[in-house]
Amino acid sequence: MSRLSELTFVGLGLNSEENTSLLGLEEAKKADTVFMELYTSLMPELDLNRLEKLIGKHVHVVLRRDLEEASGKIILQSARNGKTVLLVPGDPLMATTHVDLRIRAEKQGIKTRIVHGASVVSAVIGLSGLQNYKFGRSVTIPLSDANSLDATPYYVIGENLKTGLHTLCFLDIRAEEKRYMTIEDALDVLFTLERNKRQRVVRDNTLAIGIARAGSDNPAVKADYVKQLQKYNFGKPPHTLVFPGKLHFMEAEALVTLAEAPQGILEMVK
Amino acid sequence: MSRLSELTFVGLGLNSEENTSLLGLEEAKKADTVFMELYTSLMPELDLNRLEKLIGKHVHVVLRRDLEEASGKIILQSARNGKTVLLVPGDPLMATTHVDLRIRAEKQGIKTRIVHGASVVSAVIGLSGLQNYKFGRSVTIPLSDANSLDATPYYVIGENLKTGLHTLCFLDIRAEEKRYMTIEDALDVLFTLERNKRQRVVRDNTLAIGIARAGSDNPAVKADYVKQLQKYNFGKPPHTLVFPGKLHFMEAEALVTLAEAPQGILEMVK
Repeated sequence: MSRLSELTFVGLGLNSEENTSLLGLEEAKKADTVFMELYTSLMPELDLNRLEKLIGKHVHVVLRRDLEEASGKIILQSARNGKTVLLVPGDPLMATTHVDLRIRAEKQGIKTRIVHGASVVSAVIGLSGLQNYKFGRSVTIPLSDANSLDATPYYVIGENLKTGLHTLCFLDIRAEEKRYMTIEDALDVLFTLERNKRQRVVRDNTLAIGIARAGSDNPAVKADYVKQLQKYNFGKPPHTLVFPGKLHFMEAEALVTLAEAPQGILEMVK
Repeated sequence: MSRLSELTFVGLGLNSEENTSLLGLEEAKKADTVFMELYTSLMPELDLNRLEKLIGKHVHVVLRRDLEEASGKIILQSARNGKTVLLVPGDPLMATTHVDLRIRAEKQGIKTRIVHGASVVSAVIGLSGLQNYKFGRSVTIPLSDANSLDATPYYVIGENLKTGLHTLCFLDIRAEEKRYMTIEDALDVLFTLERNKRQRVVRDNTLAIGIARAGSDNPAVKADYVKQLQKYNFGKPPHTLVFPGKLHFMEAEALVTLAEAPQGILEMVK
């Protein structure tokens, strides 16, 4: 009898194993082998022992190089020979790496399936109180090692602002190096770009919303003008940053009520 | 002793109660009262009896008018007097109605909390194989009763295409009337708008991706030129439509491998 060749991508959701769905756990329980990657996102309250207890089997934690450099060989080999689950933080196909792995699996005749999980994308939009359909393209502000600064985030925010759209900025995560960009660092990068490019995108009176630990029981959500926002203590990572475009009255009200924005923004939308 | 005034928004995720997270169920179990709304989205395989068994208590299904017309009075009254949970399809604060309810709760001194769930936004982006940061603003194609057609979706797709960005089109849902826009209907609307506006946004050789039943075990994902796509049998709702902008090679490969796109699109990105 031939064995089942199957790879199921299971989204763990945000923050901890408690945000995994019933279906996701069920898939992991039924699997011959369970892998997990933790380098595309940070799940600050994840407890691996508890997750293994919930699933009832060992979870193999894979590193970036297992997925990228060896082209996911270990995972594909396992999936060719039996039912295999890859646990992924958030919603599992938001990272290019996993789409790439899925393509390679399908090309080898391995059936792929997906169990979705809560993503930082919808979580942050929801927590911000802003309306989903008013977000333009999103962007990542990368951690920089050298003197060169990537100006893409600056231009993306600027383009969105021109058409009144909001911008969701993901802040870079290098989980294997334990390096997480903070809202403070991200604003520093943008202030430097403003000084260099002078296109009046991020100025002292620019409003932004910082969000920390989306999906945990103590998320920090604070809206303020960027200079003040940079001094706010958001606590532990992961952090995210939103630049609002033109606000509807209800969005401004949401920012004041749910994110302690300055009352003055209500005047701007009257 | 004063009672706890608390309203927790719990995301049910997609398709069925099986996509609810452990944490979401736990919150519902601990609640004094549990409400659920099912009119902002369609969860085709939701089994209310099974959900009530999982939670161990009765779930009060609320209608649109309970949330909007009476300004969520029933829910807020319950939340003032005890721990209350509102179950919402998808990720709970993606619908404006719920952000509005949250603002009103906080203004009345009711503590609000959020348990995120898988959203159609990240699910559809993941299933399409396209890259998240290349999506421009999204749009809803509304069901129309009268002769008037809303041209917004047409213009949004056009603006995104100009800058090479993808467009995620939500198709209108009126769950209480059991009316769900299909991919076929949505394309009809766009073809009519193309004939009226003539801005060459949706032409015969325009590529699009139809996605049906995201989050279920049998999602349909098919990429094709719009005239062919309109003839494809996507099966039952909910449906979603994506218009890709400029494709990276890996995105084109994803569309061919995962969404049966015509091989010819690989030539376009070489």
